Amino acid sequence: MRILGIDPGYERLGLAVIEKGSGKETLIHSECFQTDAKLSFHERLHLLGIAIDRVITEHNPEHVALENIFFNTNQKTAMDVAAVRGVIIYLGRTHNLETFEYTPPQIKAAVGGSGRANKKEVATMLHHLIDINKEIRLDDEYDAIAVALTHSAIHRK
Amino acid sequence: MRILGIDPGYERLGLAVIEKGSGKETLIHSECFQTDAKLSFHERLHLLGIAIDRVITEHNPEHVALENIFFNTNQKTAMDVAAVRGVIIYLGRTHNLETFEYTPPQIKAAVGGSGRANKKEVATMLHHLIDINKEIRLDDEYDAIAVALTHSAIHRK
Repeated sequence: MRILGIDPGYERLGLAVIEKGSGKETLIHSECFQTDAKLSFHERLHLLGIAIDRVITEHNPEHVALENIFFNTNQKTAMDVAAVRGVIIYLGRTHNLETFEYTPPQIKAAVGGSGRANKKEVATMLHHLIDINKEIRLDDEYDAIAVALTHSAIHRK
Repeated sequence: MRILGIDPGYERLGLAVIEKGSGKETLIHSECFQTDAKLSFHERLHLLGIAIDRVITEHNPEHVALENIFFNTNQKTAMDVAAVRGVIIYLGRTHNLETFEYTPPQIKAAVGGSGRANKKEVATMLHHLIDINKEIRLDDEYDAIAVALTHSAIHRK
């Protein structure tokens, strides 16, 4: 089974496709898609949608796993990330993909860390869980891999 | 110019298409699209997207006018409506339509009422502004007409 993990955001969107076989998961694709801050939010949302569509079309995942952040200190930011969430769920469904949502504590628990693990510790743990044969510079890409692995660990059917 | 006005919501989505000519605006289409509470939020979001796509395809608007409600007493509801907003903006852009957002006070001011006008008073005012030759039972449909008229009044180009 192929899982598309997404760390939602409108400045940076983390995307990772993993394949779950009988053994360890394989990383098929990962990227951090960034949008230009000079563009309007509407234009950025459109570009994010195109990027999500491209990754689904190229890598044919069967499920989407989404990091769900409901609370944010900034209400405006939270609302805009919620709009990105809407586009992800909608696009998944147009490709007949079901989307599963996981909270940050669920993700940290699943990738083996305590709720207090920092970003760097999570990244180190991910390298133990899955072979990452590329350089990753932005946390969003790690976060996308983490939510895909979380779905792989939690979802059994 | 044709304007698609939308009152966003995941239980009820108000949709109205008006045509702006040299004189009074004409109501081309309006409806309140409802989704079944028994469905998952993800499924409802998908059905809403299909309804928006259908109205755009059938009535060819050139602009989308969206009532923007950023604050809600219920954070979960606000986030889910924000997700609907994301789908609307995204779908508009895929049809090359620009979306314009208006706050409730802007809408009330534009349709001629005070900020304190209640739902019934707004409905009465709308009947003076545009010919509505149909029975409207739900406020969401009136709200969609109101935001389309607001865009018609405010946007000049």
